[in-house]
Amino acid sequence: MLERARFLDAGDPLREFRDRFMLPDGVIYLDGNSLGCLPKATPARLEEVVREEWGRDLIRSWNTAGWIDLPARVGAKIAPLIGARPHQVIACDSTSVNLFKLISAALAMQPGRKVVLSEPGNFPTDLYMIDGMERQGLAKRRLAERGQLIEALDDSVALLMLTHTHYKTGETFDMAELTRAAHDAGALVLWDLSHSGGALPVDLDGCAADFAVGCGYKYFNGGPGAPAYAFVAEKHLEAARQPLTGWMGHAAPFAFSDDYEAAPGIEKLLCGTPPILGLAALEVGVDLIAEIGIDRLYAKSQALSEFFRQCLSERGVAIDLVSPTDPARRGSQLSFRHQDAYAICQALIGRGVIGDFRDPDILRFGFAPAYLRFEDMAEAARHLAEVLETGEWQRGEFQERAAVT
Amino acid sequence: MLERARFLDAGDPLREFRDRFMLPDGVIYLDGNSLGCLPKATPARLEEVVREEWGRDLIRSWNTAGWIDLPARVGAKIAPLIGARPHQVIACDSTSVNLFKLISAALAMQPGRKVVLSEPGNFPTDLYMIDGMERQGLAKRRLAERGQLIEALDDSVALLMLTHTHYKTGETFDMAELTRAAHDAGALVLWDLSHSGGALPVDLDGCAADFAVGCGYKYFNGGPGAPAYAFVAEKHLEAARQPLTGWMGHAAPFAFSDDYEAAPGIEKLLCGTPPILGLAALEVGVDLIAEIGIDRLYAKSQALSEFFRQCLSERGVAIDLVSPTDPARRGSQLSFRHQDAYAICQALIGRGVIGDFRDPDILRFGFAPAYLRFEDMAEAARHLAEVLETGEWQRGEFQERAAVT
Repeated sequence: MLERARFLDAGDPLREFRDRFMLPDGVIYLDGNSLGCLPKATPARLEEVVREEWGRDLIRSWNTAGWIDLPARVGAKIAPLIGARPHQVIACDSTSVNLFKLISAALAMQPGRKVVLSEPGNFPTDLYMIDGMERQGLAKRRLAERGQLIEALDDSVALLMLTHTHYKTGETFDMAELTRAAHDAGALVLWDLSHSGGALPVDLDGCAADFAVGCGYKYFNGGPGAPAYAFVAEKHLEAARQPLTGWMGHAAPFAFSDDYEAAPGIEKLLCGTPPILGLAALEVGVDLIAEIGIDRLYAKSQALSEFFRQCLSERGVAIDLVSPTDPARRGSQLSFRHQDAYAICQALIGRGVIGDFRDPDILRFGFAPAYLRFEDMAEAARHLAEVLETGEWQRGEFQERAAVT
Repeated sequence: MLERARFLDAGDPLREFRDRFMLPDGVIYLDGNSLGCLPKATPARLEEVVREEWGRDLIRSWNTAGWIDLPARVGAKIAPLIGARPHQVIACDSTSVNLFKLISAALAMQPGRKVVLSEPGNFPTDLYMIDGMERQGLAKRRLAERGQLIEALDDSVALLMLTHTHYKTGETFDMAELTRAAHDAGALVLWDLSHSGGALPVDLDGCAADFAVGCGYKYFNGGPGAPAYAFVAEKHLEAARQPLTGWMGHAAPFAFSDDYEAAPGIEKLLCGTPPILGLAALEVGVDLIAEIGIDRLYAKSQALSEFFRQCLSERGVAIDLVSPTDPARRGSQLSFRHQDAYAICQALIGRGVIGDFRDPDILRFGFAPAYLRFEDMAEAARHLAEVLETGEWQRGEFQERAAVT
């Protein structure tokens, strides 16, 4: 298998990009869908922002270094990678805060409808953000299993809010189909692209999506807690109103007037002062993903995950796959169910294979195609096979839970 | 004057701290109340966070580098600097977003009352955040001039929300008096400490304040767009509920349950994934301010601004001071009114004296006591006198407005 892997690596058109990332020795990193790797260009860029733009030029950098435009500039770079036009995307705040803005915006556009429809087991923060609004009396949360979503779309549904690629299983929704069904029922649609953006093709405008959010620290390699991004369809840009009406979303922030007037474009989604260090790091990650190109990343992602499955199969590993077997129906990950998933994950980490665990029983491997090799697949599969064969995961040291799992 | 300034500098107990900041050559920086200077320790700390914690240790750093505790750790360090106990303060999001959380929390605790009372001319984002909630039907904004605030406190007022040190004039409120008056009227109080924290003593617990927010990038020197902080009085920690119910504010974020349950303590104010780069830089700035000590900073701040006024007076500069003449009634700044404030500000910048302009006619000088010298005061006063005498600010090059003013 290792020979076949090396043959595939030799023919990989993306192989030179691995060297654009810092990859620690002795580690096979299958968690780029939780925290992407550090692009080698990032430390120098941050050094420049810190020492020159902040340290030397100080307050003037809001103009001279273009800090004030950074949220829109990074958003415009993300836009073509998710099927959007530059003026429809902005980078700011966290995914959770952006969910709040856009759920609120959708509800305000749907008088008489309060239901936000999602699926049980969606990423927790997505569901929680509805909870907060429900307690304010502004929303009503409804959950339906993914097979029942379309029939749950009645005339009380203001918004269908779904995560395109499921964080646990990696299963993707058919964005075009669900969006059409929601529109047919008079509902708007908000897509969470956190586990899609930067790894697989997304066509927001092609699907006529209304709103979207996504994460900067996964496949976009923006660093821990990087700013997130938000998309508003052009047809809603004028009407959309969100309640986090901070000064940076004002039509004229530096007029310092007492009354809020929303900026006409996507800037109306801004709230407080933009986090420049985080945005600068995110920009480096986005530039690199844009340079590689989503189509090539997606092709390699599918090849990597299929090869990983082949390796497991040839080693006779019997572990319950919860991701779709059809690579066209999943994101850039494979997830397996095992009652001792946590300890197995820890045992693999002990061997330098970093995947992650998702409560209660999911072992998840993300395949960031920008920096992983087929050789990593073969080796990770070997380690998993050995861990399961030897039962080493049953040792006490692998059982103890850390604060963050 | 320069000799007297140097004499004062020689006796300044904080003089060695200037060397702990990067200060560009040829610049007298009187805008540390807009963006604080770069602590020399910050680049190395960021380099460590980026290359080692992110680049080398990757996802494990959430546990091993304590990333998950960073918002509470930085909050706990800010707490004693604002008269709070460590478990009452957390560093997260922007000042604007934190205002939203705490205004909402206060309104939810005051059934039957919807009015949020503030003053016209408060920092715009504070007023705008009420506007957003008003449009949702959750709040009603009322503004009263500062002399009329106490009589405006009727039984419809849920929350009195004020900025302790005014961003334009530098005038401070009597926090104890206003808080008492609000409580007497059955209202809660939220203090915005953006222009106070890190420069002057604040005694939140001593004044029985209910809520507070503040800024990380001014006197705390946390860098452009640094995370902000939020305070909740211990007596409200259990009952307070805020609507930005993201996963990081959950009692058990990594249980990944479908339903939100607020964390029991100050962590309930968290929403999305914390911005690690920003928090790490902020921590360096906060550590440095804590090392110097607020009382010493405040004493020097008063001495600096009084000396600046003496220098202007001895030079016969007649410009309208809008800040209180009593240093005990103002923050660490002096503001002047002039119809050509913008151009004068630009002419001073042309001479290396960086103050700032606030629409429409305010020339503002901030005196960050951690790194400024009395010599800087004497020189800045000389430049201001010369600019006004020569009329050089009337040259065309100083008239053109930049995007950020």
